[in-house]
Amino acid sequence: MAVFSSAVLRSVLNLMPTQGSRSSCSLRWLRRFSAGPGPEPRSVRALLSGESDRYGGVTVRHLPGQISESTFSSMLRDSLSQWRSEGRIAVWLYVPLAQCRLAEAAAVHGFTFHHALGDTAVLSLWMGSGESRLPGYATHQVGVAGAVVNESSGKVLVVQDKNKTVNAWKFPGGLSNPGENIGATAVREVFEETGVRSDFRSLLSIRQQHNHPGAFGMSDMYLICRLSPLTHDISFCTQECLRCEWLDLVDLAKTKDTTPVTSRIAKLLLYGLEKGFDSIDLSMEEVPAVYTGLFYQIYHRKLPVEHK
Amino acid sequence: MAVFSSAVLRSVLNLMPTQGSRSSCSLRWLRRFSAGPGPEPRSVRALLSGESDRYGGVTVRHLPGQISESTFSSMLRDSLSQWRSEGRIAVWLYVPLAQCRLAEAAAVHGFTFHHALGDTAVLSLWMGSGESRLPGYATHQVGVAGAVVNESSGKVLVVQDKNKTVNAWKFPGGLSNPGENIGATAVREVFEETGVRSDFRSLLSIRQQHNHPGAFGMSDMYLICRLSPLTHDISFCTQECLRCEWLDLVDLAKTKDTTPVTSRIAKLLLYGLEKGFDSIDLSMEEVPAVYTGLFYQIYHRKLPVEHK
Repeated sequence: MAVFSSAVLRSVLNLMPTQGSRSSCSLRWLRRFSAGPGPEPRSVRALLSGESDRYGGVTVRHLPGQISESTFSSMLRDSLSQWRSEGRIAVWLYVPLAQCRLAEAAAVHGFTFHHALGDTAVLSLWMGSGESRLPGYATHQVGVAGAVVNESSGKVLVVQDKNKTVNAWKFPGGLSNPGENIGATAVREVFEETGVRSDFRSLLSIRQQHNHPGAFGMSDMYLICRLSPLTHDISFCTQECLRCEWLDLVDLAKTKDTTPVTSRIAKLLLYGLEKGFDSIDLSMEEVPAVYTGLFYQIYHRKLPVEHK
Repeated sequence: MAVFSSAVLRSVLNLMPTQGSRSSCSLRWLRRFSAGPGPEPRSVRALLSGESDRYGGVTVRHLPGQISESTFSSMLRDSLSQWRSEGRIAVWLYVPLAQCRLAEAAAVHGFTFHHALGDTAVLSLWMGSGESRLPGYATHQVGVAGAVVNESSGKVLVVQDKNKTVNAWKFPGGLSNPGENIGATAVREVFEETGVRSDFRSLLSIRQQHNHPGAFGMSDMYLICRLSPLTHDISFCTQECLRCEWLDLVDLAKTKDTTPVTSRIAKLLLYGLEKGFDSIDLSMEEVPAVYTGLFYQIYHRKLPVEHK
């Protein structure tokens, strides 16, 4: 338990940055009086301020500014003790990059990195019984490819990557930007790599791969969409592509100069050209979310109107 | 430029932990002689050791142990200067949690968090021209639900979540574990929540949602699978579920006590019961990956054998 004289308390209070209605560290003082006759020095514990959630967790979003590691470590220790006594089972600690040394102190108390991005790291600590039930962070990068099919010519737009060791024909594509919808990624990547403008038509296929090279040990979800061309002239990006062409789907389905996925999708597209794309498409709809009022996109086989 | 006397150099060399064939910091000495007559003190620059990649980046996987922030800052500054002169466009810095203070020093040189997990944070710095072309980290968590359909009775296994404000019927499901395949998640989650054992049959639908609540500002990919039951007795997990039942698909498709997604999938399943599940399924196949020899799973509409 950290013990402070009133002089120290006043100087700590003066050091605390305040941010309008949110103070970096609202100190909740627990006053304890020692037993015995006559006035005794008060002992107080400085605790971190955290928001509780309905899952039994507590989140500390703002750390005290200008605080030494040892003082922070004491505060954290006392806070953990308090939260444990309240039955809390998880603690989340938001640590700014500029105060990263405090993460070292947190590690001594059992915290580990949960995730980090930009100028903030989030550390977590499981205090419940048994195996940790903390929710994980994002595990997949999402890549989207666009198969731009010219239905009248039976050709599809393909590229050869510049930066790969094997020169294989593939559909243009790339990683989704944060917050970007699948179809938008496909249309954007096709345009950036080939100069061709296109419209989203359907989702064709998903490929899931774990320990994906270049995914920092995480997994990859690769979605292939069918697009229809709005323009046809190619002006490809020489930084990413070696070549770019409109290739006959029949040739793409046969050639060895491609990847297994691309070859498979070429065959799927040929089947679609033959039987109608309805036979291979997953159509997209926007639906409002229950809690947030935001919209999300859902993909599945087309349901006839009377069945919706 | 950091200048070291030979005595300091020897003591620094003694401090460097070595790990077999990989030293934490293999110092590459650049000897410069000042102009002028007679012997002059040598000036050397201590640089961090990094692995170069074909995209113009350099990765520092091991930091010197027992190093002060200021010494590290000087080394980093000199290393950046060297890498810039070599035309490198990106630097990746692996920082152990126990040495997190060094991340503060890196931040002064422009580094930010790229990602972090467990006891390691990775910081990145874009040194190329224009907007950063650094690849991002994982952006999606993946949740999978399993719709266990009893084809003979026309019923489907549903649960009511314990921890939500709205008590809605939903398919059992949850987040994929790292490295876990979609079908495996569905089967596992169904068993954990309901006690029912099942087999994967197909992928039915994907829902993408950004700024997903509980996803730490990231996105959510929610995949719904069709499973067939191997057992029927319910023994549900009271920690996660309030109720669990075999519900008539017709009733699930009509009720207001469910989510829009679940209602939609119930209608899709009714259509499948009527026309055959081939009309709604995306079947799964395992395909070998090009570069790694690992396998991945690909989902799309079933292709007749002669079209493969």
